[in-house]
Amino acid sequence: MTDATPPAAGSRTPLPLVPGEGEPRLRADAARNRARLLEAAARLAAEHGAANLTMDAVAAAASVGKGTVSRRFGDRTGLLLALLDHHERRLQEAFLAGPPPLGPGADPVQRLLAFGPAVVRHERAHLDMYLAAEPGRRRFTVPANQVRRTHVAVLLRQAGVGVDAELTAYALVGTLDTALVDHLLTERGFPPERLDAGWRDLVTRVVGTRRT
Amino acid sequence: MTDATPPAAGSRTPLPLVPGEGEPRLRADAARNRARLLEAAARLAAEHGAANLTMDAVAAAASVGKGTVSRRFGDRTGLLLALLDHHERRLQEAFLAGPPPLGPGADPVQRLLAFGPAVVRHERAHLDMYLAAEPGRRRFTVPANQVRRTHVAVLLRQAGVGVDAELTAYALVGTLDTALVDHLLTERGFPPERLDAGWRDLVTRVVGTRRT
Repeated sequence: MTDATPPAAGSRTPLPLVPGEGEPRLRADAARNRARLLEAAARLAAEHGAANLTMDAVAAAASVGKGTVSRRFGDRTGLLLALLDHHERRLQEAFLAGPPPLGPGADPVQRLLAFGPAVVRHERAHLDMYLAAEPGRRRFTVPANQVRRTHVAVLLRQAGVGVDAELTAYALVGTLDTALVDHLLTERGFPPERLDAGWRDLVTRVVGTRRT
Repeated sequence: MTDATPPAAGSRTPLPLVPGEGEPRLRADAARNRARLLEAAARLAAEHGAANLTMDAVAAAASVGKGTVSRRFGDRTGLLLALLDHHERRLQEAFLAGPPPLGPGADPVQRLLAFGPAVVRHERAHLDMYLAAEPGRRRFTVPANQVRRTHVAVLLRQAGVGVDAELTAYALVGTLDTALVDHLLTERGFPPERLDAGWRDLVTRVVGTRRT
């Protein structure tokens, strides 16, 4: 099992929070090798689109055999999920350890308000990759979504909002689902600002009656 | 195109509201024939599970050739979507024309509060069929979801809630997504009452600051 494999449905393993807590410690050269393959894959995806990414092309671009890519990532979906994880970690660093209002230091409600627009901006920047790796029915259990939900639930609790924080986190993070954002922006033609405003209004209403 | 086919992505066709507005008028014998096939399919799905439903079995149970089933529904997914539509119409009748608080006559906020638990109860009763027909990326454009969103947006406007009703409807109806409900009930082990309470709390918070 590579570190990019999402936990099985119903798995109770701890959330894979930044920076890679609970991952098997790769030996330094293996980690370098993996990073090199991911860089090659990210470059190819940026040039030709994530939908056109193949294991063969990554092997050729990194000057290794296809077997090396397969051993590291399993299959194409495994590679795409690892690549997504690579991008998602930058977003996670921003909301878990970056500057306020997204990161620590700001009021939890301010951090909640900043979270939605940051995720939508991030998804728009990497939309074709998110869509190419779209995990379908696994979408609720992929680590990235667990991290997002945990973050939102923690902020709701910190803000003293008297809600079922876990369930409310599903509702709020669900509005940032990649396929939904793509549907609203591309098929419905909503401007991104409308999504940002909708998120802020929803968060404001949810925290509005908090018991502090 | 059968009347069960969801509109193409980005289609701007009018919503297929109950009772089948905008559908091609089937001749009476064709409509009877179709109803007979759907009854056979519903019976087989109830007996053996929707996941095990085949075109051949429906043809045999209704004593017609497989070609008749194919001409009517296209493929297995078309048949499952038609069957789902059949069930969904009963739910739609309940919230569009049934007794209050779900149907007309009650305060719009009371109707909104009743809507979530009614949908969750309905989905639980037909969960294996909803999951067997799970339309994946098409989930935002299937008619059933458009009808649900329209209903919620109309109630939000009637209640005088000063929100982006259309976008808020995506957020609220998204919490009732079949795959999400299944994930929460089956994989996470949440009791259905927790989902109902979560819906009521979310609606109460959203309408809480309404400008009437």
